[in-house]
Amino acid sequence: MSARVAPDAVRTVTCIGAGVIGGGWAAYFLAQGYQVRAWDPAPDAEEKLRHLVDASWPALTELGLAEGASRDNLTVCATLAEAVEGTDFVQESAPEDLELKRKLLADIDEAAAENVVISSSTSGYPMTDMQTACARPGRTIVGHPFNPPYLIPLVEVVGGEQTDAEVVEWTSAFFEAAGKSVITMDREVPGFIANRLQEALWREALHMINAGEATVEQIDRSITDGPGLRWPFHGPMLTFHLAGGQGGMAHMLDHFGPSLLSPWTRLDAPELTKELRDAVVEGCEEEAEDRTIDDLVAERDRQVIAILRAMGKA
Amino acid sequence: MSARVAPDAVRTVTCIGAGVIGGGWAAYFLAQGYQVRAWDPAPDAEEKLRHLVDASWPALTELGLAEGASRDNLTVCATLAEAVEGTDFVQESAPEDLELKRKLLADIDEAAAENVVISSSTSGYPMTDMQTACARPGRTIVGHPFNPPYLIPLVEVVGGEQTDAEVVEWTSAFFEAAGKSVITMDREVPGFIANRLQEALWREALHMINAGEATVEQIDRSITDGPGLRWPFHGPMLTFHLAGGQGGMAHMLDHFGPSLLSPWTRLDAPELTKELRDAVVEGCEEEAEDRTIDDLVAERDRQVIAILRAMGKA
Repeated sequence: MSARVAPDAVRTVTCIGAGVIGGGWAAYFLAQGYQVRAWDPAPDAEEKLRHLVDASWPALTELGLAEGASRDNLTVCATLAEAVEGTDFVQESAPEDLELKRKLLADIDEAAAENVVISSSTSGYPMTDMQTACARPGRTIVGHPFNPPYLIPLVEVVGGEQTDAEVVEWTSAFFEAAGKSVITMDREVPGFIANRLQEALWREALHMINAGEATVEQIDRSITDGPGLRWPFHGPMLTFHLAGGQGGMAHMLDHFGPSLLSPWTRLDAPELTKELRDAVVEGCEEEAEDRTIDDLVAERDRQVIAILRAMGKA
Repeated sequence: MSARVAPDAVRTVTCIGAGVIGGGWAAYFLAQGYQVRAWDPAPDAEEKLRHLVDASWPALTELGLAEGASRDNLTVCATLAEAVEGTDFVQESAPEDLELKRKLLADIDEAAAENVVISSSTSGYPMTDMQTACARPGRTIVGHPFNPPYLIPLVEVVGGEQTDAEVVEWTSAFFEAAGKSVITMDREVPGFIANRLQEALWREALHMINAGEATVEQIDRSITDGPGLRWPFHGPMLTFHLAGGQGGMAHMLDHFGPSLLSPWTRLDAPELTKELRDAVVEGCEEEAEDRTIDDLVAERDRQVIAILRAMGKA
């Protein structure tokens, strides 16, 4: 097998699928200065794709284009074979249909040079289930973006049972080189990480609407004017770390642990064992690094003000 | 009973409890130009309270003080009776202890003029359970803030079984006049709204850490660099409204409804009946008002860019 190009030496990427996600990826890669080759079997794919790229370009320009970035670097191809010609990386963003993805990944695997990593945008399927028809499944991997991929930094990277460990490492390094915020998971979990958290919140919201406990507008405003103002800079864990005062997460769990038994959501909590308590406390301390609680409080105030201002809420 | 002052004519408010929440309320009311009378039985309460107010004052100054706002308008009182003298409104922020709150609310009810509304910051207890010892429970109500109360706009207002309907209305109008984003609930639900959503997310996160599926840092970053970048302006419902493309929430639910059965969180979803589907779709359409999907997409891009910039992530 010929050597794979280094993650930061990738010059040409292929986007398979030209819907909102595939088009968003194409726009992002173009803005980062890559050559982009795209293919989608739909007859109006080129028109739609160029429309998506054009629509996102003002935002990408405002955020700052990489040197050499241009929409002219987009080549819309007539066939899959043409789209993977000379490529260094493939991102698949076809509709969420397991059989379709199985077949498509096998076709990409068949068509692309053997050293090229093939990543899937799937938000639902484990790669273990999608890579089954591939002749070379070791180079297939999930690289799950968040909508819109041209603005939201997060990419969750996770391999399937047959994915090579080296491919996991390469893919994470590639997305980082491409400017993404990468979370590399060491196992397949349905929904990955962010969607599991989002889905728990969404299901609780649906229950509340169903029971007449809250309206759609109340649910949205309870987040946008409440905890949502903190989550772009301190996630839910660090937010609770601050809720513990100077004692941080340790105080929070030791004193408010019993509230895990309260009926404050329909989701039962895990038992707060010493192991779980310590893992959460140590994780918060590691994440806080050298920031004291006072530092984090000052950071919270500064960032909430910045967000209130940015949103026109100040 | 003498007439209650109009919600927008309140001049003097009383803060009972000088911890982080009570102190945050005092700072907020001072910045809004109110006279604030405070009481806390702790011996070092005045020192702590003035420290809290001083610590929050730069942030409040940056956001803009109301005319006449001054830290000199804070009077720390030696007794509860003194603290409620001549007040137009009482906000109670004592520790979360049901017996303590029951007794304290009864004492405030005993001491305060009969036309004064008494609001509790409780994050956990229904007013029905707290107002039982009050002689005049009709004027007791929950006004649940989010930490820090001097920066986060949200206040959830909900009465207990004995609370007068007119008091619910008055309290919501008062908090609105004081510049808060008010959600008025028509029934008591454990955890109110925002904390139920937050708690569902938090419990799913604890399960993931417990099962070794994600680290504390991964959980936080999956939100801060992912959906958290959208939640300060479009809540979870409107976010999914956009996930449906031009078809909005209707398309989203009709096509992705089956994913409610996916094991993407440990929380089971409610059955997606026609009634629930319609309530969610109509709620999103009402919330979107005259904004088309294209308008919302443009708004999303603009706001995500503003947040990325404000957070230094752009």
